[in-house]
Amino acid sequence: MSDSIYSYQQLYSFSLNVFLKIGCSNEDATLATSVLLSADLRGIDSHGIARLIGYVRLWEAGRINATPDIKITHETPSTAVVDGDKGLGLVVAPKAMQIAIEKAKNVGTGWVSVKNSNHFGIAGYHAMMALSQDMIGMAMTNASALVAPTYAAEKMLGTNPIAVAVPAGTEAPFVADFATTTAANGKLEIAQRKNQPIPTGWAQDANGKPSNDAHILKQGGALLPLGSEKDLGSHKGYALGSIVDIFSGVLSGASFGPWAPPFPAYIPMPENMPGEGLGHFLGAMRIDAFRPAQDFKSNMDIWLNRFRNAKPIEGQERVYVAGDIERIIEAERMKSGIPLVDDVVNDLNQLANKFALTL
Amino acid sequence: MSDSIYSYQQLYSFSLNVFLKIGCSNEDATLATSVLLSADLRGIDSHGIARLIGYVRLWEAGRINATPDIKITHETPSTAVVDGDKGLGLVVAPKAMQIAIEKAKNVGTGWVSVKNSNHFGIAGYHAMMALSQDMIGMAMTNASALVAPTYAAEKMLGTNPIAVAVPAGTEAPFVADFATTTAANGKLEIAQRKNQPIPTGWAQDANGKPSNDAHILKQGGALLPLGSEKDLGSHKGYALGSIVDIFSGVLSGASFGPWAPPFPAYIPMPENMPGEGLGHFLGAMRIDAFRPAQDFKSNMDIWLNRFRNAKPIEGQERVYVAGDIERIIEAERMKSGIPLVDDVVNDLNQLANKFALTL
Repeated sequence: MSDSIYSYQQLYSFSLNVFLKIGCSNEDATLATSVLLSADLRGIDSHGIARLIGYVRLWEAGRINATPDIKITHETPSTAVVDGDKGLGLVVAPKAMQIAIEKAKNVGTGWVSVKNSNHFGIAGYHAMMALSQDMIGMAMTNASALVAPTYAAEKMLGTNPIAVAVPAGTEAPFVADFATTTAANGKLEIAQRKNQPIPTGWAQDANGKPSNDAHILKQGGALLPLGSEKDLGSHKGYALGSIVDIFSGVLSGASFGPWAPPFPAYIPMPENMPGEGLGHFLGAMRIDAFRPAQDFKSNMDIWLNRFRNAKPIEGQERVYVAGDIERIIEAERMKSGIPLVDDVVNDLNQLANKFALTL
Repeated sequence: MSDSIYSYQQLYSFSLNVFLKIGCSNEDATLATSVLLSADLRGIDSHGIARLIGYVRLWEAGRINATPDIKITHETPSTAVVDGDKGLGLVVAPKAMQIAIEKAKNVGTGWVSVKNSNHFGIAGYHAMMALSQDMIGMAMTNASALVAPTYAAEKMLGTNPIAVAVPAGTEAPFVADFATTTAANGKLEIAQRKNQPIPTGWAQDANGKPSNDAHILKQGGALLPLGSEKDLGSHKGYALGSIVDIFSGVLSGASFGPWAPPFPAYIPMPENMPGEGLGHFLGAMRIDAFRPAQDFKSNMDIWLNRFRNAKPIEGQERVYVAGDIERIIEAERMKSGIPLVDDVVNDLNQLANKFALTL
């Protein structure tokens, strides 16, 4: 089972056409495609074009509105709540981030909580929008429940990622983008496809015992928060996932916790949802709202250079800063193409048939 | 070796008098004592009165200014940088948090980065200042380097804690307050005193191999970021600790990374420090800058109630929300007193002798 290689441009055109076919405007289809494909480029394969068919299924189920009226429902000089009107998270989130950036231009920082949205691709894309503006960007989102809190035998939180992007001078920027679990669900999916066991610490079974079965979530198991177990700080990962859920869901009026809407269209929506759709939280801080941008950047260069040149442990060539590995993969894939596993190619062919497109 | 029990009021008076003796104003001594003792009350013994002698030694070494001129050096409507003028972090941080709260009143949110400060006690105290204002509070700080990045054989980051406090309606609030490491340094100190091994995943030796020796940091070892090892997500804990360092240190113009100033006065200051003193980052977000406070609070009550009543795993009575355990300890210690180990009592007696006080 070898991967097929597609060029970025090839997948970009295909994805753009699919979003146009479901009724997105040119502008929205372009935006959604840029966000989606940035995941494939950066090596976060689980959040890229592999999910295209999932978005289409949500649209078919009436859970995604291809022509949303995205609007601010409440605001102050530094904050806003945005109603995504069931639009693609891939479109709603970058538009909300743009609002955060505009507010930061005016009063130093901007913070936007979003309701009535759905899966927004990789958090890192939205956070990185701030970089070209000499701002620090932040993005987070809640997601359907796959994760058990410390001491709990129930799935209560999503993998709730956090991204933070920080500009620099001559050094490449700092870009953190991570699920608040020990392992992202995408890593579990890879083990499922290969029928391989998973490391102890990633998941528990229905009784809360550690499990090495990649399929355990279908049998009442759950992913574990960053930290894996209480003695190793899982209550901290649980707290982080909670913060993301509160900022994205409770603060905006979206649904939250075990009531967050699922991504797979075949899973019924939760009953008695306390809010509307999925939630995101986006932030932008102007560097020069704190100190002259050049001073910050030259210190940030010192920071990045020192960490990138830290002494590595035996068996490792170097120490990475958040975002370095994704940047290396992006350069490679822009040149040599994006590998897709057979399952994903089959999904894309199915979409090609449905919409009379060629991959 | 049994603990001695002291009442909150007894330790409060003693601490207040010590801060007055080193020359703090009445207002500053009161504030510093409230912050310091909140750690003892909440069960975070490593950050409470156990550190009082450490602050005195820093003052004796000329590294703490008892009468600082704390001032804003740069600001916008939603941001400020505060110069702590080498004041006690216990005083500088709550004053900076007050500035963040005032800014939030005006424009929705307030964000203050602090330089030229030092150890600020527990992050949770500062974040919780926002609760009575119907605001979400955030606090973080950098600290002297004890932690090795993923793949690194060097200490590069402090235990860099993050606190987030969220108000609720009838339910007790959400208060997360945690080091971005697998285990706080205080837990290591407890194992050192008892001469006990530490769990695998807390620390590594000078070559980057896992270590169970509580004294390993003195032999070139390091604490590990939350996640413990790469397969279990230590790069995420490393990223979190980095974010705290950048927001607290680089954004304010404080020192950062391996150049953060040490707490023990006998350790020389790092050479070629790229900034001034230790840094903090404090934030306040007005709930009603996003949605009506009552709507938020009633949803937050649903959130808290649902998580507090999640199904526990076998062998556990219940599931906790961030801050629950500290709240239980606080109620207990307010009633029954605060236990201090012999080493701490000896330190306090030394201070009593030095300043002609009675404990």
